[in-house]
Amino acid sequence: MNIPNEFSKIKEHFSPKVIGEVNDTYIKLAKIKGEKVPWHNHKNEDELFYIIDGSLLMEIENEKPFMMHKGDLYIVKKSINHRVSSQEECCIILIENKTALHTGTVHNEITTSITAQLR
Amino acid sequence: MNIPNEFSKIKEHFSPKVIGEVNDTYIKLAKIKGEKVPWHNHKNEDELFYIIDGSLLMEIENEKPFMMHKGDLYIVKKSINHRVSSQEECCIILIENKTALHTGTVHNEITTSITAQLR
Repeated sequence: MNIPNEFSKIKEHFSPKVIGEVNDTYIKLAKIKGEKVPWHNHKNEDELFYIIDGSLLMEIENEKPFMMHKGDLYIVKKSINHRVSSQEECCIILIENKTALHTGTVHNEITTSITAQLR
Repeated sequence: MNIPNEFSKIKEHFSPKVIGEVNDTYIKLAKIKGEKVPWHNHKNEDELFYIIDGSLLMEIENEKPFMMHKGDLYIVKKSINHRVSSQEECCIILIENKTALHTGTVHNEITTSITAQLR
């Protein structure tokens, strides 16, 4: 599959879509635009962010926020509180263990089940 | 980290370099040029290929070979015999379980240990 082409099929923001599995890990695509992702963490799961297009503000608790741009990769380690946002649309690849919940134990308007992400 | 920048530090071909960990999974960068990768499989591990730059010929046993280009992603499922090659230099991200051996149970001139890949 071609990743830019897969992104062209995604219309919603904040709605990760599973595009593949590598053993216990899901490969997901997501479009971020705005500030709807709540502060959250994944107790047992690391989470990889890779920027395909656009820019993403990464906020890590007790650290200085930083901007990620196309081609940048960052791994939020398990249990670390974090939040991402973007003024303009940002296309990202997410890689995380299958057990990871979208917004950790926090539920808000953007929270989606893994069933929805697999559609 | 910036992926194109990380690739600029890699001089050797066929020598995967671990750049991150997502739970039980390694994220690796590799440069492919030539036909030195032997036919092999990973008994228990899926292997993700994502093309950052260049083109890669993917050969899967009993299937028609196909070319992968920049932005293409393909997951070779566990135990499937495969081989990759490239006429010109090709930069790829590999994602696979930590237990995966570079060239499966086949050892040849390009086989490297995970210790070398972690350097």
